[in-house]
This record gives sequence, C-alpha cells and structure tokens, in this order.
Amino acid sequence: MSVLASRIRKGSYADSIVLMQLQSDLERLQGVMRAGVVMGSVVNLDLLRSSELLDELADDAGPEDLIIAVRAESAEAAAEALSKVDELMQRKRSTETGDFRPRTLAAAAKRVPDCRWVSISTPGRYAQAVAREALDLGCHVFLYSDNVPLDEEVELKQQAASRQRLIMGPDCGSAMIDGIGFGFTNRVRRGPIGLVCASGTGLQAITTQIHQLGAGISHAIGTGGRDLQEDVGGVSARQGLELLARDDATEVIVLASKPPDAAVRTTLLSSAMAIEKPVVVLFSGFAAPAPGLGNLRFARSLTEAAMQAVSLLDRTEPSSKTRRQGNDGYLRGLFAGGTLAHEALQMAAPFLSPLYSNLSAEGVESLPTPTQSRGHTLLDLGADEYTVGRLHPMMDQQLRIERLRQEAGDPEVGLILLDVVLGLGAHRDPASELAPVLTEIRSPEGPQIVAIVVGTDEDPQGLQSTVDQLSDAGATVYQTVTEAMDHAITHSLPRLVRSLPSIDLDALERPDAVINVGLDSLYDDLVAQEIDVVQVDWRPPAGGNERLMSILEKMKA
Amino acid sequence: MSVLASRIRKGSYADSIVLMQLQSDLERLQGVMRAGVVMGSVVNLDLLRSSELLDELADDAGPEDLIIAVRAESAEAAAEALSKVDELMQRKRSTETGDFRPRTLAAAAKRVPDCRWVSISTPGRYAQAVAREALDLGCHVFLYSDNVPLDEEVELKQQAASRQRLIMGPDCGSAMIDGIGFGFTNRVRRGPIGLVCASGTGLQAITTQIHQLGAGISHAIGTGGRDLQEDVGGVSARQGLELLARDDATEVIVLASKPPDAAVRTTLLSSAMAIEKPVVVLFSGFAAPAPGLGNLRFARSLTEAAMQAVSLLDRTEPSSKTRRQGNDGYLRGLFAGGTLAHEALQMAAPFLSPLYSNLSAEGVESLPTPTQSRGHTLLDLGADEYTVGRLHPMMDQQLRIERLRQEAGDPEVGLILLDVVLGLGAHRDPASELAPVLTEIRSPEGPQIVAIVVGTDEDPQGLQSTVDQLSDAGATVYQTVTEAMDHAITHSLPRLVRSLPSIDLDALERPDAVINVGLDSLYDDLVAQEIDVVQVDWRPPAGGNERLMSILEKMKA
Repeated sequence: MSVLASRIRKGSYADSIVLMQLQSDLERLQGVMRAGVVMGSVVNLDLLRSSELLDELADDAGPEDLIIAVRAESAEAAAEALSKVDELMQRKRSTETGDFRPRTLAAAAKRVPDCRWVSISTPGRYAQAVAREALDLGCHVFLYSDNVPLDEEVELKQQAASRQRLIMGPDCGSAMIDGIGFGFTNRVRRGPIGLVCASGTGLQAITTQIHQLGAGISHAIGTGGRDLQEDVGGVSARQGLELLARDDATEVIVLASKPPDAAVRTTLLSSAMAIEKPVVVLFSGFAAPAPGLGNLRFARSLTEAAMQAVSLLDRTEPSSKTRRQGNDGYLRGLFAGGTLAHEALQMAAPFLSPLYSNLSAEGVESLPTPTQSRGHTLLDLGADEYTVGRLHPMMDQQLRIERLRQEAGDPEVGLILLDVVLGLGAHRDPASELAPVLTEIRSPEGPQIVAIVVGTDEDPQGLQSTVDQLSDAGATVYQTVTEAMDHAITHSLPRLVRSLPSIDLDALERPDAVINVGLDSLYDDLVAQEIDVVQVDWRPPAGGNERLMSILEKMKA
Repeated sequence: MSVLASRIRKGSYADSIVLMQLQSDLERLQGVMRAGVVMGSVVNLDLLRSSELLDELADDAGPEDLIIAVRAESAEAAAEALSKVDELMQRKRSTETGDFRPRTLAAAAKRVPDCRWVSISTPGRYAQAVAREALDLGCHVFLYSDNVPLDEEVELKQQAASRQRLIMGPDCGSAMIDGIGFGFTNRVRRGPIGLVCASGTGLQAITTQIHQLGAGISHAIGTGGRDLQEDVGGVSARQGLELLARDDATEVIVLASKPPDAAVRTTLLSSAMAIEKPVVVLFSGFAAPAPGLGNLRFARSLTEAAMQAVSLLDRTEPSSKTRRQGNDGYLRGLFAGGTLAHEALQMAAPFLSPLYSNLSAEGVESLPTPTQSRGHTLLDLGADEYTVGRLHPMMDQQLRIERLRQEAGDPEVGLILLDVVLGLGAHRDPASELAPVLTEIRSPEGPQIVAIVVGTDEDPQGLQSTVDQLSDAGATVYQTVTEAMDHAITHSLPRLVRSLPSIDLDALERPDAVINVGLDSLYDDLVAQEIDVVQVDWRPPAGGNERLMSILEKMKA
C-alpha cells in the first residue's frame, strides 16, 4: 500500500541540477518510496504517469510549472516529505562554496575587470537580455541556453558582429578557446587544428578523434545549431572562420554543421575558399560536391572529418596549388556528356550564383532560353532539346562550335569549359574541329578555355594528340571533371567576399577569467580548469512569474 | 547577293548520320554557300535563323518535319541543289557495304540463330515494338533510343525481367559486355571491375579512369537514366548487380547513377549490401551516408569512384569482416548526443525502413508519440521535448534508463544502440549507471546492445574503464558512429531481399553476334570490333507519316 502526494509551483524557476538534487534528497527521506521533481512538459507528465507519480493535481500542470511528486508508505510520510522541500532546497544552497556571488553581471565585471568572456546558461527566454549586457561590457559570449527565440538570436548576432565580439550560440553545447573548455568538452591535446562547429557532440566527437589520432586542437568555436539558417546568416561561423584564418596556432580548419541554407552556404564556402589554409567541410546530410575543391575537403562523417584534418597536417605544403584569383567573370560550360555536365553542375552549385542550366539540380535555376546563357551557365548540349533530329554533340560539334563563338563574344564571360569525349561512336577527331575555333577566339582580354578530355591511350582518336591539339590552341586541359571544376570554380568566384567587421585576435587568447551566468555545473567545470570564475547569483525577474513580470514591465513603462 | 531556298518533308524519318552527310554534300555543290538539314525543333529553328537559313516556309515546320535549307549564289543554284536531294541521299545509301540487310528482326535472327543481343536505336516512339520483338526472340537488349515513353519503359522492363532477359536502356548511351562495346565506349583494358551505370558519359569517365589507373573492366552494364525512378523500380540495375555478383570475372562492383527514388534506393542498397564483393556507390547529388558501410563505399565523384574501385582490388580480403546476418528485428537508438543521433540517422535512412525519429531527415518519418518507438527508431533524448526542466541526458540518465528497459522488453527489437559521451560537464561515471541495467536486460533471446563511447584517455570518467564496464555488461563498444552503424545496419537489414528472376550467366559472355536495328554508326562500331553484325534495314511504319500510321492502325483493327 502506498500514497501519492504532489505539489505544483506555478511558473517556478530552478536550476535543473537543483531539481535533480532535490529529487534524490526526497527519495532518501524515511517512508518515501519514489519521488519526481520535473517541469510539467508533455514528456515529463508521461514519464510521471508511467512511474505512477502523476495525480490529478499534477495532470493540470503546464510546461512552466514545477511538479514535486512523492510516493510514500503513508499519507503522513508523503506530507512530511513535501513539507521539507523548501528546507532541502535551502540546504543545497547553503552547502555551496562560500564564494562571493554578485547579483548582477555589472557587479561581477567589476571584480574581474579584464574578463573577456561571459558564459550564459539561463533559461532561453532570459538569455537575450543577459547576452546584450555582456556585449555592452565588451565581452565575448558563450551562450549555452537553448529555446532562445530566433529573432532574438538574429538581433544578438548582428549586435555582436557590429561590436566586433564573438558570440558562440545560443544552444552552443561545447567550445574551446586556447585550451579552456566551455560547456561539454573533452580533455584533448593542444595542437594545430581549429574547429568551427554548429553542434556540441559533433564538436566533441571530432576533437576526441583528432586527439586519438595523435594530433590536437587550437580552438573549437561553437556557433549554435541555427547559425547557418538564412535569417541568422552564419554570423558566428563566418566570425569563427575569419579568426582561425588569421590565427597563427591554427594550420588546418574543420567546419562542421548540418547543411546551411543555400544563401549562407555560398557565402560561407566562398569565405572558406578564400582562406590560405586547408578547410575540411562536413555538412552532415549535404551531398559533397566533390572529395575536394581548391583548399576545401568534403567529409562524409565526423570520423572522416577528423581523419582528413589530421592527414592534412602531414602535407609539407598545406595548400599546394597556386591560388587562382576570382575574376568576377561568368563561367560558361558547353558539355557534350550529360553526366559530365551534371557532375560539373553539382560541384559548381554550392559556390557560384546565379547558376543556370538546362539540367536540374539543387541551387540551380532553369535557363529560360536554351540558345542564350545567363550568369554562370552550364549546358548539357546532348539533352533532348538540342538533339531532336540532330546527331549527338559527341558526333556533331556544329552546334557547340557556334555556341563557343557566341560565348567568347560575351564580355561578361571569364571562362569557357568544354568536354571532349573520345572512343567508339564519338567524332573521329573532335580536337581537329575545335582547335581552330579556340585559336580564332583566343585573345588576351577574352575568356580562359578549360577542356576535359575523356578517353584512353588506345582510343582511335588518340588521347595525347587530342590533348596536344587543344593545349596548342590555348586551352588548359584536364582529364577529370574534378580537376577542371577546381580550376573553373576558383577562377570564377567573386574577387571580393563580403566580410564582417574584424575581431581582435585576443578573442583566441586563453581566457584567464570567465563570468558565469546560469548553471552551477558550468561554473564548477570552469573552476576545475583553474581559471578565475565569478558566478553571478542570477534569478529571473519576478522569480520567473509571468504575470508578475508583465506587471513589472507595465510599471516600468 | 545570295538566295535562300528550302524544302520541308512532313513527318519524314532519316538516320541523323544521313542528314549530316546530306548537309555536307549539299555544301559541296557548285554555287551553294551554306546548307542546313535538320528536324524542325525549337532549337534547330533558332539555329537556322542565326545562320540565315530560315525562311517563312521552314518557320512553320514542326519537330517531326525535316527541313532542307540552302543559301546559294543564285536562285538557280539553290533550286538545282534542292532538286538533287533525293539523288544525294540515294548515293549515300548505294555507297554502303553490299551486306545483306534483312527488312525485319525475325529475318535477321534467322541469319544469326545463336545471337543473344539486339542493339536498338530507332526513334523512341518505335523502340518498344522492336524491343518486344527482340525479347520474343529470346535476346537481351541494348536500347540506345531516347524519348521512349516512361510507361513503355516500365512494361518493357517487366517483360524482360519475367523472361530472364537483360535490358540496358532506354537512353543507354554506353555498355560493355565481356570486352564488346555498345554505343559510345572507350578502348579499355579487360579486368576485374564491373559497372552498373545509369549514364553514358558517366560510364565512359569511370571506365577510362580505371584504365588509366592500370586496372580494367569485366563488364559495364548500362541501365538508362530513368531505371532508378520509382515506376521503373531499378529493374536493370538490380539485374546488373545480381549478374555481376555471380560473375567470376568481377571482383569489385561500381554502381553509379543520379540519386534513386527513395523506395528504389532502399531495395538497391540492401541488394548491394547482400553481395559478397565490395561495391562502390556513386549517387551523384546524394549525400553519402558515410565513407563506407558494410561492403559499400560511397564516392563523391566519378574520379573517386574509379580510384576507390581500383584501390579495393589491392585488398587481400575484399570484404574483410565477417558478414553479419540481417535479423528482421528493429533497431532502437537512444542517443544523448544530438549530432551523434543525427549522423546515425543519416547513415540508417537509405537502408532501414520504416525509420522513425524525433529529428528530421530525408526518408525519416516523425515519431508520433515521443514515449513510444515504432519500427526502426533513432531518438535524440537531448532534444527539447525530453529536456524541459530536466537535465540533459549527458548528465541525467534516468529517462534513458527507463527507455532502455522499455525497448528491451519489446519482442520486435533486435538491437539497441546507445551513446556515452565523456568529458567535462557530463555525468561523472555514466557507465556505472548503465552497466547494471544492461546486465539486467541481457538475455539470449533479447536484443544486442551496441554502445558508442566518445571521449579521451584524459577525460575524468576514464575512457578504458567506461569501455570495460559496458563490454562486461554485454555491450559491443565502438568509438565512432560509423563503426557502430556499420554493425547496427548490417544487423538490422531484413534477412531476405526481394530479388528478380535469375538471368543465365551466358548474358555476360562475349557477344559473337549482334543484330543492330537503327543507326548505321552503331552498326559500324560493332563491325569494327570484329564480331558478326546483322543490320536490319529498318523503316518506320508508313514511312513515319503519323496520319498514314493512324489509318494503317485503323485498317488493322
């Protein structure tokens, strides 16, 4: 025989650690069989129900309400347990260290005037106000809080950017600045790999695997999971990349996130490609455009990202190729091979905008007039609309030759890309037709010509003779789409990448002091790293009571 | 001064090579400056216009009409040129080899009774009838024709499958059977790599690169670009995989295509995973779930597919691990780490169905009740709905432990997957809480337990002690999501994969004879390979005249 009793505290705030502690304290009391101390969310109500800890009273609780439920051997034991709740919560508090705990961030800042970092883990709806105060004090912010409204994140990040301050989060579970861990972090070796990472356990998985491979971490900058959404615009990620690009301690960069929104992706990848260090990109769930393009390497898993980063350290020249400059000219691709065109399009789509084609792919616009290119255009000239009652361009190049002249005459064009497919069935000597046209359109101001030749040394057309004819006519010749697109994309990127106001590199110096606002556990973890930490004794306005808060707001106005 | 004259032939059929030949013959006539011989498609009309070869007469032509246009120095020269059209086309014909050319497929088959292959390249709307006739004769089909209606492709492939015949195409640009090339092919070394490939130039790019890397091709089976659409169901690809799986000459398989529709993808990847040979998968534009899972390797480009295939040849044990058997039980993943859950989900999605989660990803259904799993379920227990006013499961495992007992009690569950994240901020000894529960739920009939431990040897919880505690309690422990999901997916695949009727392996023997219906150029290319080729002197019914065809149809009825 057992008795269930519960108590609801409407709109009550408490640190989750305190709740967990209270629950186990209650369960230790004489006559108590089981206790539950949770906020009244749907899942928590369900869990209380399955633990036989949910009575009618608690069933009415909302997600902002604290439920304290006790199943005891008798009604007396249950009532006595509930009566001790305040005392138990008080006891927890009094066992805390006797450190001075200022009530406000401003007061804390006076104690550690050189402090550059504020760690914030209040409930999400209070986080913006605290973060804004931290930015006002000139600090960078580690923002652990989740459930921060999106518009508040947008505002905060714009503020941070304009003040040249780094903001990691909201919902940033993990970060490391010069060896000091924020949030959930593992003890890993210091070393030359820097991370910009949208997720907490993603950052942990990559950093631990880098450690296990014998390498180490310079900094791991968290961004929060929504940073790469279009509204937020990847502010934290771009700040992070820009800092690591200038940081002498960082040789290789890893950029990891769920796939960014298309607009953010183009900016972010262009920024990454402009860095003179290798960058490993892991957009989980995003189709990698290639194993690598320019200084970028695309990983398919957390483990592979770690392995690639470590293997790039061994290269004597991390970015071995001479970096080609962007030129603001458009790329025009005239393909005979449909799959070659499709692969080129996949590779170009994350980088070049606006991009048009007669093939469809994500991020690619449909070309309205097949006979007229626009912006960057990649065409499959073997597609149905070009071959009705006409031979495939692998056999009959007339259409392509006319288009080649047309593109070469367009002053907006910076690079023309061609494929030449050899073998049985194909034109008996395609280069002999193309080379004179390439020579004819060649000019110092005119577009570069890049050609992809697909064939073998045994093909009837002659692989070497084809390559030679095209090279002699001024084309740069490759034998794979990847190499040709590496050339074409790096050449066609805009010369200038829009950048954010530059953040002083002292953001990456070891934080000697941190002000912590929120979870006690984060305070403890910072203290364990032997740095100066000030815990703000933060309480929500009006004790978190929504009605009272709204009255206070009205009184202020 | 010049004169333009043109002639339209309504609904006229001609081999595209004949048209190209006619055009250059016309341009060689006295007084002719330029000629155009094309079907009246929009693009062709545009091209004639820009070449000043389009007059009002031709402007009215439709895509089924042949336009013959001549710009000459005088009206007489133009008229004379046009009057010679029939003679020129006749001359082309008479210069052809004097080989016997049967008018029907049946007559051709009598000449080469052991012939196993028919190559078809008629215009698309006539292709189904010819292909059906070829199947009736017991032949395999190389179907080069494009513009075959989708429903006709579906019918044809079902017919082929039920008759245990291979059909490559429609719109199959390239294929190789035991050294003999169909369509556009390169001269490549014979060797142990077999391909199943949806596209023509894709197949050419991969085979040429394999050749250049010093390896060679056993067979390259084309499927046509729509084979992996849901309606068609990947019949040709599955036939191809199944043949190469049994073929002694093939050691490594490459499967390349645009991304299949979701339903086809699951079947195809399950079939590929059931093969006891390494399979390199390139779905261009599809996010690779991992670098590799089971015997599958996922490539990001044509070049990488070729490189992976060649590098897999060097392995002494191509599929080194003992293959785990599928077990028809469900996979249940209880994750504390959000990104670990997301990566596991990405890896599982192409393989396991039905797959539920509280995270969203392509191919994954949303779990209706967070407290109750369904089918294969992977959960992020750190998501908001589970953590309102509750500590994150990396700190407080109560919720997860209860769920663990619940899943273990479900007789439909075959494998439970957990992650354990160590480090600062995390639970001080998570394994000490989990191990007793794992021991408690362990039973010979119960589910397997697989755990992923993320941490380093320097973490306060102790990496080795964590691994040991979990292993001693019966869990199989990995340190990466990839390894754990490799185990979990291969274990959770259905025991039986639905297969098509088996095709006799003689389909992969060198075709000594081929019947060619359609393009003369394909005939020439087959003859060049020194095999016995019979060209059918195919003409469309009623000369391709739509009105006449419809009258003929009515007369038959």
